[in-house]
Amino acid sequence: MSTSRKACTIWFTGLPSSGKSTLAEMLDKKLKKGGHNVEILDGDVVRTNLSKGLGFSKEDRDINIRRIGFVCHLLTRNGVFAISAAISPYRNIRDELREQIGDFVEVFVNCPVEECIRRDVKGLYKKALAGEIPEFTGVSDPYEEPLNPEVVIESDKEEPEDSLNKILNKLAELGYVSKNGFTTGDDAYTQEEEEKVKKRLSDLGYI
Amino acid sequence: MSTSRKACTIWFTGLPSSGKSTLAEMLDKKLKKGGHNVEILDGDVVRTNLSKGLGFSKEDRDINIRRIGFVCHLLTRNGVFAISAAISPYRNIRDELREQIGDFVEVFVNCPVEECIRRDVKGLYKKALAGEIPEFTGVSDPYEEPLNPEVVIESDKEEPEDSLNKILNKLAELGYVSKNGFTTGDDAYTQEEEEKVKKRLSDLGYI
Repeated sequence: MSTSRKACTIWFTGLPSSGKSTLAEMLDKKLKKGGHNVEILDGDVVRTNLSKGLGFSKEDRDINIRRIGFVCHLLTRNGVFAISAAISPYRNIRDELREQIGDFVEVFVNCPVEECIRRDVKGLYKKALAGEIPEFTGVSDPYEEPLNPEVVIESDKEEPEDSLNKILNKLAELGYVSKNGFTTGDDAYTQEEEEKVKKRLSDLGYI
Repeated sequence: MSTSRKACTIWFTGLPSSGKSTLAEMLDKKLKKGGHNVEILDGDVVRTNLSKGLGFSKEDRDINIRRIGFVCHLLTRNGVFAISAAISPYRNIRDELREQIGDFVEVFVNCPVEECIRRDVKGLYKKALAGEIPEFTGVSDPYEEPLNPEVVIESDKEEPEDSLNKILNKLAELGYVSKNGFTTGDDAYTQEEEEKVKKRLSDLGYI
């Protein structure tokens, strides 16, 4: 009976400072501009509102990620794009959420740890390398790369805009949005209109 | 830019076995039938998925309720009716959530503790009265009634259907749904159509 559009959970995963939050925010803006409902569940927001008191042991990390997944699932099944930008270092929990949520698009933000250390957005690598943070992903704690993510971003080689387009193209390919992040709902272009637009852009030499 | 309809959080509060979950489920069904997006955040579901490990001290209860509130807020601002059916015994936290969420309808399920003990849906009053549960709301832990709830249900005196109608009427009065729980969105009746329907029902002697 609901009139919601189909949405999905977009699950960013990658090392600290790999660029997850930056891309998540760009995607959030783009999707909202396209008329979609979107929520970002960033690591810090979640640690404050859902997981205060949890630490960084494997067990606590798993609980944290499952909680984010639970909320993403509630949002996604109601037509809201849920974007997670938590590190989520363990493969089995990400796969568990994929199974649970169904509409799940995993975006692996791949970036060599050396480059992440150079960026060190929050100054945490410095502390971790000085031995001040005992369980820091990429330094003193493991990170398990996804085996079959829907999108791989090489954030040390690509421009953020190009990475964003990769994600949007995948979302379009999977039928969650039309090209350029715009809705696939009633107010989107029909296939015929899309063709007309493409032809016009082609005639004008843009594509 | 979003095309969501306006929704709200419906916050049930009351003693264990007062009838919160029953009414929450009835409301859930009714709203879904009316084409709305709805999620129930029941105490047990939440304790499993968001708050495992938390106890029943005031501090832990407050954390639990704030988490439910956080999730209700995310849902509500995206056009989803979020229904909470947790006991939520403390007034100040409920008022904090009201402030935070804005679209907040508090439903006080009022029922004398003697009647709740008689019902004892989960058999917990028996244990609490035997001293086996140290912090049990209504027996060994306080319950603070709301001072200005939008709806008061007298679940020991009313039929559940009548209680449900009280809630739906309040939601209609506040503009979240049209009469009978049906949507106020594009696919709802216009004011003019509503008038026509009313006139017809009146002509036929139904109202």
